[in-house]
Amino acid sequence: MTSSVCGESYRQSACPLPSMPDLVAAIDSQLSTHLDARRRDAAYLGADYEALIVALVRFILGGGKRLRPMFAYWGWRAALPANSRPSPSEVENLLLLFSALELLQGCALLHDDIIDQSEQRRGKATAHIAFADLHRASEWSGSAEQFGISAAILMGDLSLTWADDIVASAPLSRDTHQRVQKVWSKLRTEILGGQFLDIVAECSNNESIVAAMKVNRYKTAAYTVARPLQLGAAAAADRPDCQKVFHSIGMAFGIAFQLHDDILDLFGDPALTGKARGQDLRCGKRTVLLAEAIARADSSAPKTGNHLRGLVGSNLTEAEVADCAALIETLGARAAVEERINSLMQQGLHALDAAPVDAVARIGLRQLAANLCTPSERGNDDPALPARIGERT
Amino acid sequence: MTSSVCGESYRQSACPLPSMPDLVAAIDSQLSTHLDARRRDAAYLGADYEALIVALVRFILGGGKRLRPMFAYWGWRAALPANSRPSPSEVENLLLLFSALELLQGCALLHDDIIDQSEQRRGKATAHIAFADLHRASEWSGSAEQFGISAAILMGDLSLTWADDIVASAPLSRDTHQRVQKVWSKLRTEILGGQFLDIVAECSNNESIVAAMKVNRYKTAAYTVARPLQLGAAAAADRPDCQKVFHSIGMAFGIAFQLHDDILDLFGDPALTGKARGQDLRCGKRTVLLAEAIARADSSAPKTGNHLRGLVGSNLTEAEVADCAALIETLGARAAVEERINSLMQQGLHALDAAPVDAVARIGLRQLAANLCTPSERGNDDPALPARIGERT
Repeated sequence: MTSSVCGESYRQSACPLPSMPDLVAAIDSQLSTHLDARRRDAAYLGADYEALIVALVRFILGGGKRLRPMFAYWGWRAALPANSRPSPSEVENLLLLFSALELLQGCALLHDDIIDQSEQRRGKATAHIAFADLHRASEWSGSAEQFGISAAILMGDLSLTWADDIVASAPLSRDTHQRVQKVWSKLRTEILGGQFLDIVAECSNNESIVAAMKVNRYKTAAYTVARPLQLGAAAAADRPDCQKVFHSIGMAFGIAFQLHDDILDLFGDPALTGKARGQDLRCGKRTVLLAEAIARADSSAPKTGNHLRGLVGSNLTEAEVADCAALIETLGARAAVEERINSLMQQGLHALDAAPVDAVARIGLRQLAANLCTPSERGNDDPALPARIGERT
Repeated sequence: MTSSVCGESYRQSACPLPSMPDLVAAIDSQLSTHLDARRRDAAYLGADYEALIVALVRFILGGGKRLRPMFAYWGWRAALPANSRPSPSEVENLLLLFSALELLQGCALLHDDIIDQSEQRRGKATAHIAFADLHRASEWSGSAEQFGISAAILMGDLSLTWADDIVASAPLSRDTHQRVQKVWSKLRTEILGGQFLDIVAECSNNESIVAAMKVNRYKTAAYTVARPLQLGAAAAADRPDCQKVFHSIGMAFGIAFQLHDDILDLFGDPALTGKARGQDLRCGKRTVLLAEAIARADSSAPKTGNHLRGLVGSNLTEAEVADCAALIETLGARAAVEERINSLMQQGLHALDAAPVDAVARIGLRQLAANLCTPSERGNDDPALPARIGERT
């Protein structure tokens, strides 16, 4: 499965370009083997805990585009010295290191779903909802909702913990490890900052585009593109030039990705995105799209602006969401945001063309960037939780 | 402040015994310096995030007995080769490493308070309550409770993240780092397991003493005593003999500590514990004390057993809590648990006497173990949160 990424062909001077599906498969293979070993190592803690672990493993392996590990992979390839020929096992170790980003993302999603009170993710119940259902089905005592939240908090903590374990125990030289750890540390502090700024902007009804862009920078762009690229580069070599250029490229692509995601939330196909339309509006998320719409309405149609303000953060019906979407489109906000996306993508691609990086990696990064702005795929059909829990000892 | 722990006197062959207050002060000094640096490093993320960081710093520095870092310190001293003379700066680095346990504990408390819906900790509002109050005082939109929970989840995640950063970047040799990381990894996976087993036992009304003891093993004993001792020993030398004996000693002392804490919850002085009596009963925690009382009632007074069952997990008044306490005392459950505590303490002390460890460390560990079963102290009077939040950009 991992042969075209890690195998002998990599040793050839040509340094082949793995296809995106091959890369995803190689990452999944590392994740799956690693998580299986961790599950076995924790078996002495008993069947109930194993149920939480199995739920986490299914969650991690059951969906996601592996964007962050792929950016890290290409960041690594981009910064690798021309004469370097890593062995297949070295490449496998690096892919596992980059996969830590998926476990970190697991924590971010699990905790974010509690924060946003989301009920669906990848076309199935979110973890806190699934655990609440389990509580009800088991006819346990106490609040099912509270149990669901508690279990999902712990499941997220476990995901974060195991992500950190992977990075801390990666078999790298001391210098390389220090470089990698430095990026990893910033990345985690930033994503938590981005999430907190997001909820504060939401509650305080912050209507500024600047504030929404700041959330995008740390909650998405740094975390999804810039820092993963830098993590990969740090694992390859001491290349301050790459670190710098990956910051600019990552911010451009990453913000474009978030703006596109904001548009998908309102205009995307639920069958493709795996979640209901208008979730951002319902939970009062202060997106650039919304800020743009309100700013436009305020200057041309103040009543419409106040109408929009009144709808944000309320439990809208599907028809009301559709009305909002039409309004935002009519105000020209969607077109303006799409214009921003195009401009950011162009900016990122130009910076990439001029970057002092490996030519094959440049192609890989172009492909990956193009893939950023496609709908998220749905997960598989595995049930979220094991059938039974509540060990009797 | 740290001179008697880290300073020149340590170089003398006598290896002085630092007093517990000196050790606490040396740990606090490392924590405080480190957290201050982290706060400054994150300043570029803006004032709102800084408010969350300041709340975390106050939470970490504002209370706690530093038990876990002290066990790690004595575990390290115990396993240190007789001829080794670490420099003051090496000792400081190790104290910082051991302080990571306080940040991990910060995450455990912050998330546990959400899980248990606790409103008070160390005599003041828990983080999720304080953030909900801030939301109300700021007249923000949306649910204040939900904001409080969200902020406290992220604050806990940040605490866990920074704990991991300390361990991952500790300046240790490769071998030492691997040994330390192995213990750290187990410790974190276990504490999360212990917390999950705890809530499952609670919801599923598990009345078995065996199940309650399993929770105690992983949620408290391994996490508070055994693994911290092993972490310290791992930082000192490759000593499988110490690892083994610290497991037994730590389990004995640690379970005694939890059983004592269960008794304090029902019989302790709120002015000393910083929290209302009977919280465990109210949230339906399946303690050994409760399991013991129910088992005794079932065999001698079945009606009393069912009466007790009916009260567990309900919102008891202070008078009802006092009635329960009297009942549990009359049933002989308190005395039986105190008997267990004494026996475990003796068992731990005997194992310590026979352990192949440094003589001074043995004295330090005896003192620390004796300190385990005293009431937790209250925190200081600093406000939990900065005055204002909700940056305008």
